[in-house]
Amino acid sequence: MTKTTRFTGVFPILATPFDDNENLDLDSFARLIRFMARLGVNGVTILGVLGEANRMTDAERQAAIETAVAAADGRLPVVVGASHRGTRAALELSRMAERLGADAVMLTPAQEPVPSEERIFEYFARVADGMELPIVVQDHPASTGVHMAAPLLVRLAREIPRVACFKEEAVPTAPKIRALIEGLGERRVPILTGLGALYGIFDLQAGSDGFMTGFAFPEVLQAMVRAMAGGRPEQADQLYRRFLPLIVFEQQPGVAVRKEILRRRGLIAGGKVRHPGGGLNPHAAAQLDQLLQQLLPGVDLGAPLQL
Amino acid sequence: MTKTTRFTGVFPILATPFDDNENLDLDSFARLIRFMARLGVNGVTILGVLGEANRMTDAERQAAIETAVAAADGRLPVVVGASHRGTRAALELSRMAERLGADAVMLTPAQEPVPSEERIFEYFARVADGMELPIVVQDHPASTGVHMAAPLLVRLAREIPRVACFKEEAVPTAPKIRALIEGLGERRVPILTGLGALYGIFDLQAGSDGFMTGFAFPEVLQAMVRAMAGGRPEQADQLYRRFLPLIVFEQQPGVAVRKEILRRRGLIAGGKVRHPGGGLNPHAAAQLDQLLQQLLPGVDLGAPLQL
Amino acid sequence: MTKTTRFTGVFPILATPFDDNENLDLDSFARLIRFMARLGVNGVTILGVLGEANRMTDAERQAAIETAVAAADGRLPVVVGASHRGTRAALELSRMAERLGADAVMLTPAQEPVPSEERIFEYFARVADGMELPIVVQDHPASTGVHMAAPLLVRLAREIPRVACFKEEAVPTAPKIRALIEGLGERRVPILTGLGALYGIFDLQAGSDGFMTGFAFPEVLQAMVRAMAGGRPEQADQLYRRFLPLIVFEQQPGVAVRKEILRRRGLIAGGKVRHPGGGLNPHAAAQLDQLLQQLLPGVDLGAPLQL
Amino acid sequence: MTKTTRFTGVFPILATPFDDNENLDLDSFARLIRFMARLGVNGVTILGVLGEANRMTDAERQAAIETAVAAADGRLPVVVGASHRGTRAALELSRMAERLGADAVMLTPAQEPVPSEERIFEYFARVADGMELPIVVQDHPASTGVHMAAPLLVRLAREIPRVACFKEEAVPTAPKIRALIEGLGERRVPILTGLGALYGIFDLQAGSDGFMTGFAFPEVLQAMVRAMAGGRPEQADQLYRRFLPLIVFEQQPGVAVRKEILRRRGLIAGGKVRHPGGGLNPHAAAQLDQLLQQLLPGVDLGAPLQL
Repeated sequence: MTKTTRFTGVFPILATPFDDNENLDLDSFARLIRFMARLGVNGVTILGVLGEANRMTDAERQAAIETAVAAADGRLPVVVGASHRGTRAALELSRMAERLGADAVMLTPAQEPVPSEERIFEYFARVADGMELPIVVQDHPASTGVHMAAPLLVRLAREIPRVACFKEEAVPTAPKIRALIEGLGERRVPILTGLGALYGIFDLQAGSDGFMTGFAFPEVLQAMVRAMAGGRPEQADQLYRRFLPLIVFEQQPGVAVRKEILRRRGLIAGGKVRHPGGGLNPHAAAQLDQLLQQLLPGVDLGAPLQL
Repeated sequence: MTKTTRFTGVFPILATPFDDNENLDLDSFARLIRFMARLGVNGVTILGVLGEANRMTDAERQAAIETAVAAADGRLPVVVGASHRGTRAALELSRMAERLGADAVMLTPAQEPVPSEERIFEYFARVADGMELPIVVQDHPASTGVHMAAPLLVRLAREIPRVACFKEEAVPTAPKIRALIEGLGERRVPILTGLGALYGIFDLQAGSDGFMTGFAFPEVLQAMVRAMAGGRPEQADQLYRRFLPLIVFEQQPGVAVRKEILRRRGLIAGGKVRHPGGGLNPHAAAQLDQLLQQLLPGVDLGAPLQL
Repeated sequence: MTKTTRFTGVFPILATPFDDNENLDLDSFARLIRFMARLGVNGVTILGVLGEANRMTDAERQAAIETAVAAADGRLPVVVGASHRGTRAALELSRMAERLGADAVMLTPAQEPVPSEERIFEYFARVADGMELPIVVQDHPASTGVHMAAPLLVRLAREIPRVACFKEEAVPTAPKIRALIEGLGERRVPILTGLGALYGIFDLQAGSDGFMTGFAFPEVLQAMVRAMAGGRPEQADQLYRRFLPLIVFEQQPGVAVRKEILRRRGLIAGGKVRHPGGGLNPHAAAQLDQLLQQLLPGVDLGAPLQL
Repeated sequence: MTKTTRFTGVFPILATPFDDNENLDLDSFARLIRFMARLGVNGVTILGVLGEANRMTDAERQAAIETAVAAADGRLPVVVGASHRGTRAALELSRMAERLGADAVMLTPAQEPVPSEERIFEYFARVADGMELPIVVQDHPASTGVHMAAPLLVRLAREIPRVACFKEEAVPTAPKIRALIEGLGERRVPILTGLGALYGIFDLQAGSDGFMTGFAFPEVLQAMVRAMAGGRPEQADQLYRRFLPLIVFEQQPGVAVRKEILRRRGLIAGGKVRHPGGGLNPHAAAQLDQLLQQLLPGVDLGAPLQL
């Protein structure tokens, strides 16, 4: 049976917690996922860039998936990043996710010496042929070096039924979202925006169906999506403006800032980033302190934000 | 006689106006510069990335410099982007700027097949030896592919007296600004932040002496700098937060959005971008409309903002 | 009147000579060109990558073109590199070449943040519309970061009559040459191979019409082309094999090795490379010594090789 | 007990054979290794770029290592590529190699958004601290985007005793090998050259201790090394020149050409390359045919070449 997930709303990209020795901290990971279930997000995505998947072994991936699926316990879909430089290996990682009970996989192609749209198409088609999970196509040239023009994405949606969502983060995102919506026509695959919600309000205005990104307060994105769905765009805009300094602060390269926020929220025991990724700069930590106090004075970060 | 400019405050990076046929529009350029003088900015920088210098011939560069110097008319310093892949040519472009009456040059090194800190040092040293203008060192790996570690920048400041300013836009900027300040010690070359002011408040907190960037409302940055200098950081922060959606909107790749704002401000006759640069997407134009109405309802964009 | 040049045979890419102070050495440049005329090559190409065009000012470009055209004196066509990041500037450089009497221009597009085949097409089309010289399309992703698939190149040839030649150096070259020939059909634009002749024999076998490259002994390439044309492929192969160690040695990054050979041939006064380009490493110089002695023992390098 | 391997001579980089369905073909892999033992090479390196390690899962890596170690059966050292974007994962892969009986690991660092020599040093130091195998440091900027200057490599050798060899393939290789030898002084770590032996003779002249590369006829490289060691440099040179057309032909991007040669030698059942890697172009196949016939007319490719 093919699983079905509706890819609208908010799918937080989750960090992978590590202890001080860089071992997987699965307790924290489960806590993080249970918290997301409590928030009522529409799903979670694990083992993406923020999840430092590219610094993990396959065995660690397996442990992370098992923990996530168990912690989610059917209450929310678990999307698993399964990108790999090799198509066959991407399929193997996707099958592993399927076998372990995940609800979807997220895939992005890798840069090749001679770019080829046909090979990119085949990459997705072959994975789709070899397993039964829905596929989220991640379009993020800044991390992959791969540029997929809108017509190629439209073709993926049209010719590969398993393509179930676009995670759109090719700047400028809003015009690309518009181009995708126009190109897709009746095969209107949901489009979620990423990039830490940097262009969040503009992307929602352009027709994005929500967010799949790592902003450390998914409640904010949920409230934005609710406001848009409820015909209150001004409210969405107010939320965006209020939290934009933090959204921007999180844009700094690396995942240390986000992990630190999750730590302060009590969701993960420590903010350790795997080497060679950079840890939290002390000045950045002080700035984050000040920023959080300003944005959320006296608020218990450990509880879901009331917005 | 060596010219001296104090590199603190706000140095807008100026767009280069073109007419619909992509010819230089020097009237608009002069108007733009006179407006900046009227704002009382601390200087202007022409022929940077936003100035589409990399799409202009040397003759056009000359015309632009002449126009800028004449329009500035001694009321504000004119900094001229003079980067070139060849050191000798960078020197020639710098000399041209000097000959035409510019007040400083801005330089960034180019990516070489085999990176070499020594060659980068020599690049700046040779230009410094061959002319008498102060040098602004631009540190912007996103556009150059060149990473200059803080110790190299400190060495440039220590060993090349003509190095007069850093335009710091290597993310994460705030920690790098702190590292520079610590490394520079008594040879405290001013540091201006760029990147369209994206991390503006964080960079000011870190010790930046102001801005050298292309945000289309320099008045906002001036007010932020004044607020910081006057011991009113909360006010600086409020300004940053208020205008952050526009700052973010301007981050979209290309210069079309900024040129359109300048056009709406009546500063340039048209927002034409030189091919192959992208023009303004119609959806982006509509979003910009809405954004400006929200931020500055009923405000005459043609007059300096009252903040 | 549109000039016509037949782009078959050998078009050496010429180095630009500089004196010890990095000034243009136009005497040497003229000597170099006269020597090429004496060799009977089919044309010369100046101001390419080997010509360090990216380290020169426009005024220097002008001087180089004037010298080349004068020295060629109608005896051989002069192709001028006119690539620029801006389409309009590429057109200006092309017009300068036309005005100064050049016979063709060579153009390659520049990498843009969001790649677009349409923009690449327009780049060539606009230059073609604005002047009357034939255009050599250079396909060299290693230096440009731009990948042009065979169908795009075919479209350029079909829709832009001024496109007169492909300089093909996208690896693997031989299969791409075959794909081009098949795609071009009756609009069989000549294809010259580059890359210092690294894959020379394989490219000739694939149907290349000759060479446009900087190998320092064009006589060898001429003899190879003659042998192929004369139905003596074994002879072409023998020449290739004989000189392959030097062809490979010249593949080392930078232009110092080739300039040194030209110096030893008495064609240019000195092998100076413009900063930040690297000069000749002493070990490399010694290896070159040995290599030349082995390849051409007792041969007067200043005279055309007798092959 | 720390294993010791003398890193001089020839260490072929091995392809990983796959069947038509892209499954690991371990029979062929074992045959390949036994053939190398029969050749008397000084060791083999598996799971490098040629080995398509970046298209394999960890479980497949494990199977490949087990097969290689078993097939080597103590007759020749097995070096295992263990590079990973994460330091901890590189250590895990190295420990897996150690546990399965490998003799050394080969490591190259990965490109980070903000380059840092210190992080690169730590990458090697941490792996060295966590296991007991010798480390081959691969210096190949073309595939990694990481430039390691000679002083950094020297520091690695001086401060990390487990660093046992440099696989040098940063062009220009010969001058870098000289710089390394001078910098290393008494801590003279062996230096093997790679790049498919493209600059083989020049690198041997510069002091390289041999080859670690994927040229499909290791016998040729062995004979070259023997000739140099035996004081017969002319013979080494003759071998280089003879096989240079094939060395060059193998430089074409991808691994299809080499796998095809191995197939023709009867060492692997098929030349399948994992998607999205390109398969053998039919024109390239025909050219390879001709080239092999020319180079080795009537020779049984399945037997070790008699040189």
